[in-house]
Amino acid sequence: MKVCYIHFEMDETWGLQMEKMRIFRPTLLLDRKRAIANIHRMAAKAANSRVRFRPHFKTHQSAQIGEWFREFGVDLITVSSVEMAQYFAQHGWQDITIAFPVNILEIEAINELASSIHLSLLVESEQTAAFLDRNLQHQVGVWLKIDVGYHRTGVSWDRFNEVIALACLIGRSKKMAFTGLLTHAGHAYRACSAAEVMKIYRDMVEKLQQLQQKLIENGFSGTAISIGDTPCCSVMDDFSGVDEIRPGNFVFYDVMQLTIGSCAEQDIAVAVACPVVAKHRERNEIVIYGGAVYLSKEFIVDNQGNKIFGYVAPFEGRGWGAVIPHTYVSALSQEHGIIKTDPQFFDQVRIGDLLAILPVHSCLAVPLLRSYLTLEGETISTMHSTPITQLT
Amino acid sequence: MKVCYIHFEMDETWGLQMEKMRIFRPTLLLDRKRAIANIHRMAAKAANSRVRFRPHFKTHQSAQIGEWFREFGVDLITVSSVEMAQYFAQHGWQDITIAFPVNILEIEAINELASSIHLSLLVESEQTAAFLDRNLQHQVGVWLKIDVGYHRTGVSWDRFNEVIALACLIGRSKKMAFTGLLTHAGHAYRACSAAEVMKIYRDMVEKLQQLQQKLIENGFSGTAISIGDTPCCSVMDDFSGVDEIRPGNFVFYDVMQLTIGSCAEQDIAVAVACPVVAKHRERNEIVIYGGAVYLSKEFIVDNQGNKIFGYVAPFEGRGWGAVIPHTYVSALSQEHGIIKTDPQFFDQVRIGDLLAILPVHSCLAVPLLRSYLTLEGETISTMHSTPITQLT
Repeated sequence: MKVCYIHFEMDETWGLQMEKMRIFRPTLLLDRKRAIANIHRMAAKAANSRVRFRPHFKTHQSAQIGEWFREFGVDLITVSSVEMAQYFAQHGWQDITIAFPVNILEIEAINELASSIHLSLLVESEQTAAFLDRNLQHQVGVWLKIDVGYHRTGVSWDRFNEVIALACLIGRSKKMAFTGLLTHAGHAYRACSAAEVMKIYRDMVEKLQQLQQKLIENGFSGTAISIGDTPCCSVMDDFSGVDEIRPGNFVFYDVMQLTIGSCAEQDIAVAVACPVVAKHRERNEIVIYGGAVYLSKEFIVDNQGNKIFGYVAPFEGRGWGAVIPHTYVSALSQEHGIIKTDPQFFDQVRIGDLLAILPVHSCLAVPLLRSYLTLEGETISTMHSTPITQLT
Repeated sequence: MKVCYIHFEMDETWGLQMEKMRIFRPTLLLDRKRAIANIHRMAAKAANSRVRFRPHFKTHQSAQIGEWFREFGVDLITVSSVEMAQYFAQHGWQDITIAFPVNILEIEAINELASSIHLSLLVESEQTAAFLDRNLQHQVGVWLKIDVGYHRTGVSWDRFNEVIALACLIGRSKKMAFTGLLTHAGHAYRACSAAEVMKIYRDMVEKLQQLQQKLIENGFSGTAISIGDTPCCSVMDDFSGVDEIRPGNFVFYDVMQLTIGSCAEQDIAVAVACPVVAKHRERNEIVIYGGAVYLSKEFIVDNQGNKIFGYVAPFEGRGWGAVIPHTYVSALSQEHGIIKTDPQFFDQVRIGDLLAILPVHSCLAVPLLRSYLTLEGETISTMHSTPITQLT
C-alpha cells in the first residue's frame, strides 16, 4: 500500500523527505530558513536603529529556536508568563522581561527567578507595586505598563500624575529598579495597511515621549521606552526615540500579519499540514483533519464579510507553495476544518492528500500543536511538547 | 506573606482546601459531583429509551474520568481521532467508534487498533470505502456518515441512491461490516431554545428513518441509527426510533450549551480559575491571567451583539457560585482576558483574587488546560497532560 502524502508536483528529494517524515496527522511544519531570515531582518533593523532587541519568545516557545536568536547576538528576551520565564531561564537565558502585569499569586516563583537571573516585571497599579515592595526578596527591574490606545491594560499615557506617583513608589523601593515605560500597541493589529501601522507607531512614540519628558522633569532621567508589537516593528525601519523593541510574532508571521501588511506571503514560516478526509462537490468544500484544537478559532474577516480561519497552499518543491486563490478555511469545529474553494482546485485535491494551512495566528497555533517538524525532517520541541508525539 | 486566593465568603474547610491546592495560574477546576450527576442523568435516559449509550470522550479526554462512566454500565465509547482511540484502547476500552471521516493516512494505526478492539469507522465516500476494502487487515464496523442539515460533512440524507451504493460497496467487503447511519446534528448548536432543538431532533430522526427504510427495502435489514449531539440528547427524553446516542459535551456542559438550553447553570461542571492582575475603573474592566491559550477563542454573541468568551462566577462554599450578572469575558488575547462588569462587582474584586470563568466551549478548553483539579484537590490527567504541571 502506497500512502499518497502529497500529490502536487514534487521533486524526488522532497518526496523522499516526506516519505521519511511520514506525516499522518495535523503537524506544524516550520520553514527554518524563512524563520532565520525573519530573525536576521529584525535584528539588523534593531542594530541599524541602535535600539535594544529583546524579542518576545511567546510565539515560538521553544528553547531550540531560541538558540537561533543567539546567532544574531540576542541575549535579552521577553516572555508572557512566569512559567515561560522559568522554561527559558532553565535553558540559559539570563535577562528576561515578563511582559504581562505581575500576577502576585506567583510571588514565590518570581522570587526564585529573581535570585538567579536579571528579571524585569510590568507594574501598572499601586496595589501591585506595594505588594512587590513588601514581598520581593531580590531586586528586579520594573517597567510601567502604559496604554497608548489599545485599551487592553496599562495606565493611560496621559495620566501623568498617576504615572509619576507610581514611578516614585517604585523608585523608593529597595527591591525595584524603575526602568521605564513599556507599551504594546495592540491596536496596530486592527490596521489594514502599512500606512495605518506607521501612523499608529508615530502616535505611540509621540505619546510615550511626552510622558518620558514628564518623568525626566520629575527626576527620572533614565526613563527608557520599550515598544512591542510585530506590525509596528515590521513596518518601521527607523526606531529613533525608542530604546527597546520586543516583537514576537515576526519570527513566523501568519495570515493576520499578512493582512495587516507586516509581511509578505513568502515570509510566513509555519504551516499546518492537514490530511484531506472528505470532499463535497455540490458546495466546493473540502474537509480536512485539522480543527480548532490545532488551528485555534482565531479568524480574520475579508472584504466580502467571510470569516477566514486560514489560507491554503499546496506542497511543492521543498516546502509549501503560493496560497491558492479563492480558497480558505471557512469553518472549524473540534477536529474538522472546512475549506471553501473553486471547482478548479476542488478537482485537483484527493482524499488522502495533505494541504498546508497557513494559520491566522501563529502564536495560538504553536501551543496547540506543541512541536515543530522542519522541512528537513527535524522535530523541534516547545515548552508544551507532550508525551503523545505528532509523528509515529 | 499571605497570598489571598479567593476573598469571597468561604467556609473554613474550603479555605483549607484551597490553601492545600495553592492555585497560582489558570487552572481547570472540575466539580466531580456535577459531572457524575450529568453522566447519571444521560445514562438513565438512554436506559429508559432502550438505546445504546456510546458517550463521546472527546470532551473529557481522560482515562480516569472514563472510569466514572463504567460505574453506569458504559462499555461502548466514541472518540474523535485515531490518537484518542489509541489512548482509550490503552486504558482498556474494547469497543470504540471513531466519529470522524476516516483519515486514510492513518491506516497502519487503524489496522493495529482493529487487531485488538472492536473498532468502528465513519465512511462517506466511495474512494475511502474502496481504500479501506483494499487496505484493512482486520474487520471493522462501518457507519455511513449522513448529513441531516448541518452541512459540515457526510452524504446528504436525501441522496438515497448514493447511500445505497455505498452500503452495497461496504456490504461486499470482507473487512467491513455495515452498521448503519450515523449523524451529528451540529446545527442544533445554532438553536436558541429547547423547543428549537426538539424541532431539529424530530426533523433529524424523520430523515434518518426515511433513509433507513430505503436501506431495509434494499436488503440492509440491520441498518441502525446513531445520533450524537449534546443539545438533542439533553433536551429529549424519548429516543424512540434511534438505536444509539453519542453525546459528549454533556459531561461538563458550558456557556454555549446553557445558551442553547441544553443545561442549567448548576449543571456546568468545569470552570477555569483565573488570577486577577489589573483593574480599570474608568471602563469597569478587570484583567485576568487567562487568555485564549486557556479558554480558546470560541465565543457566543448575546442579544446586544456583545461577544462573550466566558461567564464569571465567584468562589464560594465548596466550589464556584452563581454567575455574576452584567459581567462576562469580553475579549481574549494570548494570555490576557478582559472582564466587563458593573461598578458593584468591580469594587468587590481585588488584584490577586481568583475568579471562576465558565468556558464557552468546554471541549476546546480541556485540551488547552490539559489536566483537571477537582474541588477535592485531586489532579486528574488527560491524554494531553504535559510535564509542565498546572500546580506547583
